Amino acid sequence: MDPAIIDCLQYANWSEKIFRQMRAGGLDAVHATIAYHESFRETVLNVEAWNRRFERHPDLIVRGLTGDDVRRARAEGRTAIVFGLQNPSPIEDDIGLVEICHALGVRFMQLTYNNQSLLATGCYEDEDTGVTRFGRQVIAEMNRVGMVVDMSHSAERSTLEAIDLSSRPIAITHANPAWWHPARRNKSDAVLRALTDRGGMLGFSLYPHHLKDGSGCTLRVFCEMIAETAGRYGSEHLGIGSDLCQDQPDSVVEWMRNGRWSKVTDYGEGSAAAPGFPDQPGWFRDNRDFPTLAEGLRAVGFSEAETAGIMGGNWLRFYDASFGPETA
Amino acid sequence: MDPAIIDCLQYANWSEKIFRQMRAGGLDAVHATIAYHESFRETVLNVEAWNRRFERHPDLIVRGLTGDDVRRARAEGRTAIVFGLQNPSPIEDDIGLVEICHALGVRFMQLTYNNQSLLATGCYEDEDTGVTRFGRQVIAEMNRVGMVVDMSHSAERSTLEAIDLSSRPIAITHANPAWWHPARRNKSDAVLRALTDRGGMLGFSLYPHHLKDGSGCTLRVFCEMIAETAGRYGSEHLGIGSDLCQDQPDSVVEWMRNGRWSKVTDYGEGSAAAPGFPDQPGWFRDNRDFPTLAEGLRAVGFSEAETAGIMGGNWLRFYDASFGPETA
Repeated sequence: MDPAIIDCLQYANWSEKIFRQMRAGGLDAVHATIAYHESFRETVLNVEAWNRRFERHPDLIVRGLTGDDVRRARAEGRTAIVFGLQNPSPIEDDIGLVEICHALGVRFMQLTYNNQSLLATGCYEDEDTGVTRFGRQVIAEMNRVGMVVDMSHSAERSTLEAIDLSSRPIAITHANPAWWHPARRNKSDAVLRALTDRGGMLGFSLYPHHLKDGSGCTLRVFCEMIAETAGRYGSEHLGIGSDLCQDQPDSVVEWMRNGRWSKVTDYGEGSAAAPGFPDQPGWFRDNRDFPTLAEGLRAVGFSEAETAGIMGGNWLRFYDASFGPETA
Repeated sequence: MDPAIIDCLQYANWSEKIFRQMRAGGLDAVHATIAYHESFRETVLNVEAWNRRFERHPDLIVRGLTGDDVRRARAEGRTAIVFGLQNPSPIEDDIGLVEICHALGVRFMQLTYNNQSLLATGCYEDEDTGVTRFGRQVIAEMNRVGMVVDMSHSAERSTLEAIDLSSRPIAITHANPAWWHPARRNKSDAVLRALTDRGGMLGFSLYPHHLKDGSGCTLRVFCEMIAETAGRYGSEHLGIGSDLCQDQPDSVVEWMRNGRWSKVTDYGEGSAAAPGFPDQPGWFRDNRDFPTLAEGLRAVGFSEAETAGIMGGNWLRFYDASFGPETA
């Protein structure tokens, strides 16, 4: 059997076409964002929409709650869908909703999405005041129930504090090193070192704003960056979190950036001249291109075992360790 | 090991004292009502309150999602708590909330609580129009995911229709035969026959308004009624659903009866002269009295096997068959 393939972040306009592409690409699991700015009740509606998809496409997708669910999906030729929140808005101001969301299948939660949240500071704020009083309690609760702290969209100090406060390894599911491409969403060497020193995981993003040369980034340059990252922090801490937003209209990236909080358009990583989703690189357009990515890793010198780890094995090990209750 | 003991309906003012009494009485599982008139979000707060109780009293109680959870609780000397709704208000007008509530642990839902609901007619309405359009779909969805249809507070025609429409056996978790005590909440021979013919379960209530002679009902008279019921419908369809509302202030029975729907006080089974909770019979005051009940069953001639079935074995078999997804 080929090694597992896992993509640890997507937010597509979900359809049977995309689920079939996941199967064609050999995806065993996809971490799917189910909320950006939604309230708890709105998030539940999104879970309901997923429940209908599971019911309609049992041959293609299945709920993913544990690493073993991913293995089962793999054995059955299906893709396990793991839920995640990109913002803590679904837990509102109610710490009890962490366990409720876990019961509903949520396995990742970002403490912030660009802005200040009730928990920590996002990467677009001018001042980063670190993890809040509520944030400390929520991290402890996430640790207890088995929900992964994701700091992909958080600011530097908040991220370092979250790594330190969390009793379990955390994740940056979708970002690249800032030393390769200094975008606001990419992460400093200090963050990546602290993250991986504590057993945390980095998922490499294929969202063009996170790539050197944007949409023009080549597979070789991308994979050389992964090789350099592996050299610095160890390949066992690395995976993919493509940030693929396939088939979404541009209104969705506007929602992602502006939610209900802004009356003036915030362009985030885009600009007034280029407000929409950027074009994907030609070698990574959709889920069918994962084998290409694996080829790219081999071409820059990764062994079969290292390639298998980065393509999914490392995430699978992390899922095993992270999705259940904390053991004493 | 002694046979399992299960009480298939309680709504106590939950406390460590009561959980210790459950252990003293040998209760392996209790079906606990978590909502009467609550909205979805309010019901989630009630689940959160239970999550805190599970966290605080892991030596006494544990979440019960399956029959095997009850067996595990039993082996570990704990009581499994199974969630149920006495009214469909938590699913609002949203069929997707059936599966969401199931994911949160709900295993029983009454289609009505005394009044007309969006699903069916309650036993206090003048006109009984049967199961509604929404109700038919909800029954099918409950069947699919493994949530038991409970018609304890429903009207006759609605109950007969629900028995017929449901592809899986249903339950009347807490009521007695009307031929023994003709209270509005007790059930006709026709209902009990249809229920048990289709494999459904009846839980005997110990709520004084459902008892012949009310609070003065004797253990012997109660157990003779059970013997007569077993003779008519078969003892394998019988269990206990005590309707114990221990340590609740009278304001709670007022809430149960009036929710937010009534501006004039509805006394339900009580009266203006006796608006509060009635006194329990002396031989059944709290969870410690379950062994007394078992003695009473033996005293009227039930065999050890029949007694074990009525005290919990029959519910356990029903839980095994009912709480998981429907199989083709």
